[in-house]
Amino acid sequence: MMRFALIGCGKIGKVHADSIAAHPRAELAWACHPREQAARTFAAEYGAKASTDVDTVLADLSVDAILIASPTSTHVDLITRGVLAGKAALCEKPIDLDITRVDACWEQIKSENPTVMMGFNRRFDPSFRAVRDRIRSGEIGRLEQLIIISRDPAPPPPGYVAGSGGLFRDMTIHDFDTARFLLGDIVEVQAAGGNFISEEIAEVGDIDSASIMMRGADGTLCQIVNSRRCAFGYDQRVEAFGELGMLTVENLRPSGVRFAGGAATEVADPYLSFYLDRYIPSYRAELDHFVTAVETGTPPEPGFADGRATLALADAAGESIRSGRVVRPGV
Amino acid sequence: MMRFALIGCGKIGKVHADSIAAHPRAELAWACHPREQAARTFAAEYGAKASTDVDTVLADLSVDAILIASPTSTHVDLITRGVLAGKAALCEKPIDLDITRVDACWEQIKSENPTVMMGFNRRFDPSFRAVRDRIRSGEIGRLEQLIIISRDPAPPPPGYVAGSGGLFRDMTIHDFDTARFLLGDIVEVQAAGGNFISEEIAEVGDIDSASIMMRGADGTLCQIVNSRRCAFGYDQRVEAFGELGMLTVENLRPSGVRFAGGAATEVADPYLSFYLDRYIPSYRAELDHFVTAVETGTPPEPGFADGRATLALADAAGESIRSGRVVRPGV
Amino acid sequence: MMRFALIGCGKIGKVHADSIAAHPRAELAWACHPREQAARTFAAEYGAKASTDVDTVLADLSVDAILIASPTSTHVDLITRGVLAGKAALCEKPIDLDITRVDACWEQIKSENPTVMMGFNRRFDPSFRAVRDRIRSGEIGRLEQLIIISRDPAPPPPGYVAGSGGLFRDMTIHDFDTARFLLGDIVEVQAAGGNFISEEIAEVGDIDSASIMMRGADGTLCQIVNSRRCAFGYDQRVEAFGELGMLTVENLRPSGVRFAGGAATEVADPYLSFYLDRYIPSYRAELDHFVTAVETGTPPEPGFADGRATLALADAAGESIRSGRVVRPGV
Amino acid sequence: MMRFALIGCGKIGKVHADSIAAHPRAELAWACHPREQAARTFAAEYGAKASTDVDTVLADLSVDAILIASPTSTHVDLITRGVLAGKAALCEKPIDLDITRVDACWEQIKSENPTVMMGFNRRFDPSFRAVRDRIRSGEIGRLEQLIIISRDPAPPPPGYVAGSGGLFRDMTIHDFDTARFLLGDIVEVQAAGGNFISEEIAEVGDIDSASIMMRGADGTLCQIVNSRRCAFGYDQRVEAFGELGMLTVENLRPSGVRFAGGAATEVADPYLSFYLDRYIPSYRAELDHFVTAVETGTPPEPGFADGRATLALADAAGESIRSGRVVRPGV
Repeated sequence: MMRFALIGCGKIGKVHADSIAAHPRAELAWACHPREQAARTFAAEYGAKASTDVDTVLADLSVDAILIASPTSTHVDLITRGVLAGKAALCEKPIDLDITRVDACWEQIKSENPTVMMGFNRRFDPSFRAVRDRIRSGEIGRLEQLIIISRDPAPPPPGYVAGSGGLFRDMTIHDFDTARFLLGDIVEVQAAGGNFISEEIAEVGDIDSASIMMRGADGTLCQIVNSRRCAFGYDQRVEAFGELGMLTVENLRPSGVRFAGGAATEVADPYLSFYLDRYIPSYRAELDHFVTAVETGTPPEPGFADGRATLALADAAGESIRSGRVVRPGV
Repeated sequence: MMRFALIGCGKIGKVHADSIAAHPRAELAWACHPREQAARTFAAEYGAKASTDVDTVLADLSVDAILIASPTSTHVDLITRGVLAGKAALCEKPIDLDITRVDACWEQIKSENPTVMMGFNRRFDPSFRAVRDRIRSGEIGRLEQLIIISRDPAPPPPGYVAGSGGLFRDMTIHDFDTARFLLGDIVEVQAAGGNFISEEIAEVGDIDSASIMMRGADGTLCQIVNSRRCAFGYDQRVEAFGELGMLTVENLRPSGVRFAGGAATEVADPYLSFYLDRYIPSYRAELDHFVTAVETGTPPEPGFADGRATLALADAAGESIRSGRVVRPGV
Repeated sequence: MMRFALIGCGKIGKVHADSIAAHPRAELAWACHPREQAARTFAAEYGAKASTDVDTVLADLSVDAILIASPTSTHVDLITRGVLAGKAALCEKPIDLDITRVDACWEQIKSENPTVMMGFNRRFDPSFRAVRDRIRSGEIGRLEQLIIISRDPAPPPPGYVAGSGGLFRDMTIHDFDTARFLLGDIVEVQAAGGNFISEEIAEVGDIDSASIMMRGADGTLCQIVNSRRCAFGYDQRVEAFGELGMLTVENLRPSGVRFAGGAATEVADPYLSFYLDRYIPSYRAELDHFVTAVETGTPPEPGFADGRATLALADAAGESIRSGRVVRPGV
Repeated sequence: MMRFALIGCGKIGKVHADSIAAHPRAELAWACHPREQAARTFAAEYGAKASTDVDTVLADLSVDAILIASPTSTHVDLITRGVLAGKAALCEKPIDLDITRVDACWEQIKSENPTVMMGFNRRFDPSFRAVRDRIRSGEIGRLEQLIIISRDPAPPPPGYVAGSGGLFRDMTIHDFDTARFLLGDIVEVQAAGGNFISEEIAEVGDIDSASIMMRGADGTLCQIVNSRRCAFGYDQRVEAFGELGMLTVENLRPSGVRFAGGAATEVADPYLSFYLDRYIPSYRAELDHFVTAVETGTPPEPGFADGRATLALADAAGESIRSGRVVRPGV
């Protein structure tokens, strides 16, 4: 059994604790959170020990891996300390909001040959993965154009956006990773933003809607469409267009019911409403990938470098909006 | 040019007159109707001569074919007179409501080796025909189960049903023909009826809804579902299930627009509302088949015998409701 | 915690053991099977005790309920002994193949005011249940016509059919329950069968395909389509047609991926392949309903009488095929 | 009857001649083409006079309108001469490849208060128009993001591209007009191009694939996806996303047939293959709009200024590719 310490006992921490509990070769050893009550609640539910102190957790030699589900600002420090304590780490995105801190982190840990995986769970969504596999199998020939549509059902709660690093680092970062997952390295970024939804978001200088164009190292064109609000639920689609055809991922619905009446036909239910509905299977598969990678000593994907690359794309998109120019992401 | 005399200048007569006008090798020579004004209106619109007298029309040696779009009770007489006058005939369904009159008609005309085609236009619908062709090509292997769903958008106007011959002879007769078109001869019929929609229909002793089960000569099972009213338009679907797969015909919509909102997703327009929307292309293709058959001297399909067979199925369905038994249609 | 004894440690027993393990208020106390090794394997996996002896299990006063997943021929005896031992019972369908044994069973247990639930899991499928709820809410007005299409992906293994009681008692019985779930009591049955698929099935005197028409006590028409083999997976659909519209349940697919290429468009994956894929959520919800019913002392649905009624419909369908007549199911 | 002179008797000229012939209030008076045989063929088919000389045609005082379906390089001259001869003009897109010539043309004709309509037929497609009308009705609230996917089935024949003015002026120009039709004036353009398909296109310095981002005067974001080749037919889709929901236009198929088999389900036919299949109804409606506008003395839409605006967007997209910058189209 691989023994995990969960750092961060909030909503996304719960998702990961459930995944650990459901995994036949993993167990939760520690629930760690600054508020003791949160740690204790998780510990009780999953049969783990509770702590408010990361050092205590890292000192437990029986712990194989840490799962970092705490606020972004703590990630670099926790990755560093975890790796130096000899633990494998599965860290929620992003590594940090500041790429210089990301690079400094890597300088500190790289000599350890660390096992660090980034929590870009969508890579493990069965539909997205099937599209990746079918592209690689040659089913659509050379991939030429990729469209990623990604809209959240509703803006984050008040106060969240100000510290989020902005739309590109907070939300689009998933789509940057999906783009890299499906087409590989990206060499050009252009972006445009809009403020349609939330005055609060505009007031802190962020955008709530975005269009992004990118070019892969092999020339493939990619477009991303983002919105912080979507009336019909969590809009998560992909179109991969190639020489021989197109593979698409449609939105998922909770049932197979349709209605036809006097005013409309083929009426389907609302789509799955948010990531806790849409992506639970992908969180499970993500954890399984991490466990297997640690067990077999193979590097997990997406790794630290992938986390760094998505941040560079987010920075490039921001720079493109400011300059009105095509930007090549820093490498 | 094949010269047509149209007998019956009503709504369905207009459909056929349009088909004749649109056909490159056909023209309307006569519009014939008991009310002179109706005949004149058609004649003016299509550049034809008008008459209230069938004999005048049949005496015109330049007329190649009659198109019978008059009330059912006149069909047998018109077919007989037309054939004996040497004309080919395309006749709206049904031949008659009384199968003994149908058989008597055939006795009178059979020695003429007549060219008579029945207006079962759905055989010429591109979707239904594609299903037939793909079944024959072996795409689904042996056809095992056929489902025909056929619902009108609204009951006929008051007064119509009493003289219609009943649901099976008036409406289901199209579905009986579709069944024979797709699976061949039918040897067993069971039926059940319902009265959900119209008191007037119940009062004249007819049903407004029906379930029918049939067995083909080769054992294939077939089910028909009928209703005289459908909230979401003209429901015209087929499912052909076989050893290797299934071919279905979906309802058609006038555009490709969909809506997704807070309460529902993938919302499509209402379906095409009735036969004048859904089947205009099939009326056109039906006429073309008839014209080509006459030109080439090949027997058109569906012919007189097909019209007779559908009436026998309608009678068998009625007998099954009365007796509560499986009925073998008269041959 | 409600403590269960599972009787029958085969494939469907595994489904139920998983449901018990996943339920927060249930636990597996005993795994009982004639082959000791099977009982032990289940016991080890679920932390239960193993037994080959039903009496031992029923004598355990800490056991609240038995879950009967053994062969059909044992159901009546196990229900009777379980009820008389004071246990609640959740029993796989059918109660028995012989309705006189079913009635005799009831005579023996009825004075105990027993809590017996039949495992018609499809009532708990989210799509079918949504259709039921939406019919009841009046969304489609009066229900007029119900179509149930139910096809298994492949015939059962050799030897199974001979002892199965035949298509109607073994397979259609689920659809009879679905019909009763959606439209209520049924008063007329007509049926037709076919043998297209399996010589072995024909040799034991059973059919492998069927058409069924039924009429509800309120007049609603219902049609069922069955096949023991379906090239495109597990075909499980429902259409509920009413005055104001139609609710349908489509087949479910494992992902949201579609392909468009030179020869075809909108190509979707094969459907979920069989009941272990399609209905796992319904087995979970079924168990939850049973647990809640026992906890609250309310009668679970579907109950013993529902199991009896579906068997009466199966018998009526068989009688209709033999007699070629409409049959009123015994009440 | 409005009398038309058709200038240009090629493929698109045939589409317009058919529209004129089908229109109840229009007729073809002249077929004009430099090659006498082409003019004669059209004249014979449509009952018009033939000419190789534009002046002859324009001198015919009975001609109300010219329909310009000749090569792009002739458009400015023909518009000018037609307007000065007192004719209304319906001109195929684009006005010209050089915006300075467009502006010079306008200077010459503007004092005539000319009736000039540009042949952006997609505005008259029933699906696109329904989306426009439903946006205006408020169904999706404020329009925020517009996606236009537009792919031709195959590259133009050899030799065509060199004189076409490039992808943006030749093909995307339709999508620029669709964008303006749905969201209004556009103030920012960014573009990226790719060469995946045709060496010939690359050799003449053009691109065969493109991504475009635009911003409307009111801030609405718009993305266009273009390809000169599409394996699955003519890909013509729109997504209009707003505060309250989304309206989409799907690709259209010629029939309602679907197939399900062992390897795939819901398999649909290929989409309508090219504009002669997809947009014939829109050409008909376009002509009707023009005829009605001339009859009623109202300015037709899209007019000369709309043709000029699309060319400015095409130029801006080209400039964006060259400069790597956001470009504001010239006004």
